[in-house]
Amino acid sequence: MKKVTVGIDIGGTNTAIGVVDNTGDVLQKQSIPTPGHGDAERYVKDLANTVKELVESVKHINPGIELVGIGIGAPNANYYKGTIEEAPNLSFKGIVHFVEMLRVHFEEVKAIALTNDANAAAIGEMIYGGAKGMKNFVMYTLGTGVGSGLVVNGDLVYGDDGFAGECGHTVLVPGGRMCGCGIEGHLEAYCSAPGMKRTAFELLVKYNDTTSPLANKTYNELDSKAIYEAAIAGDKIALEVFEQTGKYLGQGLADSVHHLSPEAVFLFGGPTAAGDFIFKPAKESMEKHLLATFKNKIEILPSQLKSGDAAIVGASALAWKELEK
Amino acid sequence: MKKVTVGIDIGGTNTAIGVVDNTGDVLQKQSIPTPGHGDAERYVKDLANTVKELVESVKHINPGIELVGIGIGAPNANYYKGTIEEAPNLSFKGIVHFVEMLRVHFEEVKAIALTNDANAAAIGEMIYGGAKGMKNFVMYTLGTGVGSGLVVNGDLVYGDDGFAGECGHTVLVPGGRMCGCGIEGHLEAYCSAPGMKRTAFELLVKYNDTTSPLANKTYNELDSKAIYEAAIAGDKIALEVFEQTGKYLGQGLADSVHHLSPEAVFLFGGPTAAGDFIFKPAKESMEKHLLATFKNKIEILPSQLKSGDAAIVGASALAWKELEK
Repeated sequence: MKKVTVGIDIGGTNTAIGVVDNTGDVLQKQSIPTPGHGDAERYVKDLANTVKELVESVKHINPGIELVGIGIGAPNANYYKGTIEEAPNLSFKGIVHFVEMLRVHFEEVKAIALTNDANAAAIGEMIYGGAKGMKNFVMYTLGTGVGSGLVVNGDLVYGDDGFAGECGHTVLVPGGRMCGCGIEGHLEAYCSAPGMKRTAFELLVKYNDTTSPLANKTYNELDSKAIYEAAIAGDKIALEVFEQTGKYLGQGLADSVHHLSPEAVFLFGGPTAAGDFIFKPAKESMEKHLLATFKNKIEILPSQLKSGDAAIVGASALAWKELEK
Repeated sequence: MKKVTVGIDIGGTNTAIGVVDNTGDVLQKQSIPTPGHGDAERYVKDLANTVKELVESVKHINPGIELVGIGIGAPNANYYKGTIEEAPNLSFKGIVHFVEMLRVHFEEVKAIALTNDANAAAIGEMIYGGAKGMKNFVMYTLGTGVGSGLVVNGDLVYGDDGFAGECGHTVLVPGGRMCGCGIEGHLEAYCSAPGMKRTAFELLVKYNDTTSPLANKTYNELDSKAIYEAAIAGDKIALEVFEQTGKYLGQGLADSVHHLSPEAVFLFGGPTAAGDFIFKPAKESMEKHLLATFKNKIEILPSQLKSGDAAIVGASALAWKELEK
């Protein structure tokens, strides 16, 4: 019997589901829309049916597989309680007892667990990726927001209430940009993809640069991909956006290092595709902010999870991690 | 047989040694000067003799005691290696293999361990103090510097290299005051006792207040005790020093909460004797900086270790903690 787990990534628009083996290979995957199922109960039922169909479909090719775990990555997820709580971007509101509701459909499955997407990514990195064998590391996920997953002594840090690892909401600039959470100066307002857009417009304003290709996009049009393309083409504004984003990020990473003394820091998400454009200034800035004890010890590494499947694979890793216990 | 441990607190001037029982009571204590012993080998030998004499002296009163552990709190201590490394304020230089050297004199003692003073204080709080039964908490120690001890899942966070928990060196104000470590804007430069002195002079400058009693002290004379006394007497500058110190501290504590989601935050050290003068603005500022998920959940509490013996008691707690393993 080849053991497999299912990884489920719940986003505001789509729910991605994959059957994953213990090396992190996705054997088969599928997705369903997240909204439009009526209430949460109904959504979970539809999700369970899709999972069952997918597992059956894998069994057609490989009859010897056994589903031993289900891992779920979702926004506002509480690992301890197995709940999704007051998620602003999901169609089901209030406190949803997700694991309990899914358990009804999978009584025979050994482990079902839920955590937020950044934590899932960190566990994925630990089980399948670049953090294999590491006991202490930090992962920041850069995207629409900035999430983080912290690993101490080989375990994800959940804290007292299951919500630890919100490094996107540490203060970078007191009194600075308004963060989506309503508090000023948070890292997320500077280092997320929209944060980069904000930096681009700040720099257009500063230099009054009318020749930059970025000056031909509206505030609503400009995204981090366009900034990356402009940077590759040598646009000064775009290059400085990456410089500044890296500088901000490095300051935040140094704070995490001073908390946890990790072996390495991993970066995950769209903006990290820009490679040295962001890694180089981030590393320089982190080093500048570190105590002598930590200097030149800690690498900033790109996640080694395949970007297309990373969310599914990360969620499935949570299931493998639970099965280790 | 009543089991006891010895707690040793190594400071730049004095080394305090105490025999401590498993409730945190100091049965007997003594101190020796830290410098003036020649090399580290000789210092350890003299220290070992003092420990042996002290234990013998306790045995005269209570013959039934057994020494089962020795815990040491020291600056620049590496828990994993049992070393004191390049401590700028100690008379022995380089990397000192402290535990190894002490072990020679105490072959029969089950546990000998070393950590820095802030970590020792946090373990003391967990074993004897207000954090009994807590699995996740944060302690900041305010004094000449600002140290911290972080507890996750019931264990002190040491990180990859043994030096985790340097929250005094997180960035509060980018480009701000020069910290003792040579980097700008660190929390320690604002929330330590000398940081409060710096704030006092900043405020004298801002308001050009010649009536404040603080205006009659030189920069080298003014200390946090004098600021506290002026605050009690109603001096506006002194009161604002506490307001601002609390405000800065709360911002830093919120960053730690966003990392670790602790059950509570403990404050330890001289400036905390000012009670509400500092706890109130710190709590307000922390709440202001917290995500909704964490708001109104996390208390800021004064350490319950008796201040006179806290360093010895904290170090002894490290030994009890090791014996649990």
